[in-house]
Amino acid sequence: MAERITPRNVNYSEWYINIVTEAKLADYSPVKGCMVIRPRGYALWERMQAVLDGMFKETGHQNAYFPLLIPESFIKKEAEHVEGFSPELAVVTHAGGEELEEPYIIRPTSETIIWSMYKKWIQSYRDLPLLINQWANVLRWEKRTRLFLRTSEFLWQEGHTAHATAEEAQEETLTMLEVYRRFAEEWLAMPVITGVKSQAEKFAGAVNTYAIEAMMQDKKALQAGTSHNLGQNFAKAFDVTFQDREGGQSLVWASSWGVSTRLIGALIMTHSDDRGLVLPPKIAPTQAVVIPIYRNQNKSEVLVYAQKIRDALKDKFRVEYDCDDNNSPGWKFAEWELLGVPVRIETGPRDMEAGRAVLVRRDTGEKISAAFDEIPSKLDSLFGEIQSGLYNRALEFRVANTVRISSYDKFLAFFNEGEGGFAECLWCGDGGCEAKIKEDTKATIRVLPFGNEKEAAGACVACGKQARHLAVFAKSY
Amino acid sequence: MAERITPRNVNYSEWYINIVTEAKLADYSPVKGCMVIRPRGYALWERMQAVLDGMFKETGHQNAYFPLLIPESFIKKEAEHVEGFSPELAVVTHAGGEELEEPYIIRPTSETIIWSMYKKWIQSYRDLPLLINQWANVLRWEKRTRLFLRTSEFLWQEGHTAHATAEEAQEETLTMLEVYRRFAEEWLAMPVITGVKSQAEKFAGAVNTYAIEAMMQDKKALQAGTSHNLGQNFAKAFDVTFQDREGGQSLVWASSWGVSTRLIGALIMTHSDDRGLVLPPKIAPTQAVVIPIYRNQNKSEVLVYAQKIRDALKDKFRVEYDCDDNNSPGWKFAEWELLGVPVRIETGPRDMEAGRAVLVRRDTGEKISAAFDEIPSKLDSLFGEIQSGLYNRALEFRVANTVRISSYDKFLAFFNEGEGGFAECLWCGDGGCEAKIKEDTKATIRVLPFGNEKEAAGACVACGKQARHLAVFAKSY
Repeated sequence: MAERITPRNVNYSEWYINIVTEAKLADYSPVKGCMVIRPRGYALWERMQAVLDGMFKETGHQNAYFPLLIPESFIKKEAEHVEGFSPELAVVTHAGGEELEEPYIIRPTSETIIWSMYKKWIQSYRDLPLLINQWANVLRWEKRTRLFLRTSEFLWQEGHTAHATAEEAQEETLTMLEVYRRFAEEWLAMPVITGVKSQAEKFAGAVNTYAIEAMMQDKKALQAGTSHNLGQNFAKAFDVTFQDREGGQSLVWASSWGVSTRLIGALIMTHSDDRGLVLPPKIAPTQAVVIPIYRNQNKSEVLVYAQKIRDALKDKFRVEYDCDDNNSPGWKFAEWELLGVPVRIETGPRDMEAGRAVLVRRDTGEKISAAFDEIPSKLDSLFGEIQSGLYNRALEFRVANTVRISSYDKFLAFFNEGEGGFAECLWCGDGGCEAKIKEDTKATIRVLPFGNEKEAAGACVACGKQARHLAVFAKSY
Repeated sequence: MAERITPRNVNYSEWYINIVTEAKLADYSPVKGCMVIRPRGYALWERMQAVLDGMFKETGHQNAYFPLLIPESFIKKEAEHVEGFSPELAVVTHAGGEELEEPYIIRPTSETIIWSMYKKWIQSYRDLPLLINQWANVLRWEKRTRLFLRTSEFLWQEGHTAHATAEEAQEETLTMLEVYRRFAEEWLAMPVITGVKSQAEKFAGAVNTYAIEAMMQDKKALQAGTSHNLGQNFAKAFDVTFQDREGGQSLVWASSWGVSTRLIGALIMTHSDDRGLVLPPKIAPTQAVVIPIYRNQNKSEVLVYAQKIRDALKDKFRVEYDCDDNNSPGWKFAEWELLGVPVRIETGPRDMEAGRAVLVRRDTGEKISAAFDEIPSKLDSLFGEIQSGLYNRALEFRVANTVRISSYDKFLAFFNEGEGGFAECLWCGDGGCEAKIKEDTKATIRVLPFGNEKEAAGACVACGKQARHLAVFAKSY
């Protein structure tokens, strides 16, 4: 099996693509830059959706659905928004056999179509807050694409909220950032840093963008979720006002926030190894696989025993059972490792006679023998250990590859000669320094961590002037 | 409240649209022919999705996701398919600021893009059957649209399966028709007739189309789900062959099947009345609403008691609680009736003192007093009664409006002078007669019920020649 996956230290990009395709998560499609999400990849997305959707509903949000197409004139109503998105738009010019009077854009994001509806739905403070989320496909025409990480079409959720005050909009923005942080860390076992983006890196149309950023195994950063405070920008563009408690008319305040199928790419690059996919048990569509090992003379007894094990687990865990006669146990072991199933349960004739089974951890390879009755509780505790083990390993990796740098020479060496990582550096706040750094190293400011200003005593790493921020720089996906 | 909804006997179409918009299920969008599905409408769709998705998985299907865009040349590969769909296509001609070399079509259905992938995935009989479903948006540019019933963009699921034999493909086609029948009857409380479509009415590219058809309250038919046996048409178009058990190469056999957000329209027109939406409890996003009735002097005690009722129900049922001070009890009663919540639970000071509450059925208006401890079990049995009551009422309505007609004069009178309904008539099987009937009455063959040939002794209702089928004719949505 191993030869199907290029080792990370040979070619990291190839390793990643090998895992996506060999674990049958996604495939290339005949449409430029668009992927097909195969059943094992989609099952992962369904798990993510179910958990996130629950978190959104707990925080008071409702789902709705808005049109795929957006009139071209709508996109142009918010100046920064159109500037940011226009290079990536796909345009429908003909429909029903005729040329359209006004072309439609396929949504790259839905602020404009949604705010055109909010104008209709919001009249009074009683209509606020309006807390809506949409699960949808979006299209951004990308020149360079990579399965899950950057594709022209992708699946995501986009929350769009409307509030009576600036404070409420800001609170919502940070609440949803925290939902994303919890989801990433508690479910995906993916440690993230949080903070605000620089003005150069914010969403086109936002006042401020907040993000969760994770470190991949090649030490590059991946933006895994964003939450935007949109201020009154879209309310202004679509003239959305409400009657406040005092009877006056005010512009509405807004947030928007999203995560996408990109999270699957992040998950792969956080935990997987040279044998294939590694998944945290809480998010894995299949948590354990039962594999009977037999010869012809004892086949039926072993199968009965293995099925008993599966049956004892299936109501509590997500379990598969592999009794395919066409493949050897060794082939199956490698295959299920490639597919990332957290625990393999092997049972041969001797295990059966002893009333036991062997549990094998995907993350460490450790083998644990368990008596039949112990298997469910043993599995439960193993899942907990694997989940926290993966998180801790990823966190240690990030910590080990995060350095404080104050000299620009060292900064250049870190990114241009060394292997890179996260560089915590003082920054004067000037976009010119930020641009120069990107030009010199390809590194960008991933976030300005919360409260960073307090640690900003000293000189900007690039220009030496008085710093205003402690920023985290990294090369990124 | 009543004035917000035009009565059915005044203007049925207006009644329908009033319910959709006043119950906040959907709204018109600025995109021609496209709707916005509002939170209460989307919650209904989420319930439908959850139930159907479970039924698909129980029958061995997996979800996946294929690109929104389809190369124009793909659509043209199956001759009937392109002929059927080309008038409805939306075309992307520009993307990323450039004109595309080959335009893309926004999927009207995904057979062609999916079979281009199946060619890659299917090599051997071991790869079969391939049982995949997709939840997605599709676009068919419609001239005349109506919220939920016919919109240019709609949400649906489309199953696409590949099989080694014609028999298996046919079995799958009928299995999924049965899943749809069960879903319609057991969950939506919507009785349906099942059978095969005539060749004139089948899906573009199918060998045979099977459908579930329901009767709406205006006696017109609504096609609520279809399952197609595609034969080898798409395997031929995309050259999808497999190595069979004997080592030979054979073309793959196929089915496809789908239901859409149209089901929401069907549900509304099956059960609702002049006071608003009526929903079967099994599918209703909110099954009951608790409404406290109080004056200022007893407000806090009544609220505490009402909350106790809500708390006693909330783990077992989907319950809302309406303690909004801005609206009177009377206003709330009408509002929740309009929204279609199956049972309203009223509790005033006297109910509180007696340790009771009043349960009010949305479908019949019947009021049932129940002691606090009895409420959960009473509610449970009421939901069962409402669910079967709605089904039986709809079934009786259909039976009462289904007639056997053997003379063409009576047939013409039934559809052109009378109120119409379902006409069971003998038919010679000739497309000419079918076309003449449509021309004369706008009625079409909805289905040829299973086993209809055995009842076909007699003369065709249109031409008088020897009949081959018993067909169900109706005007339809």
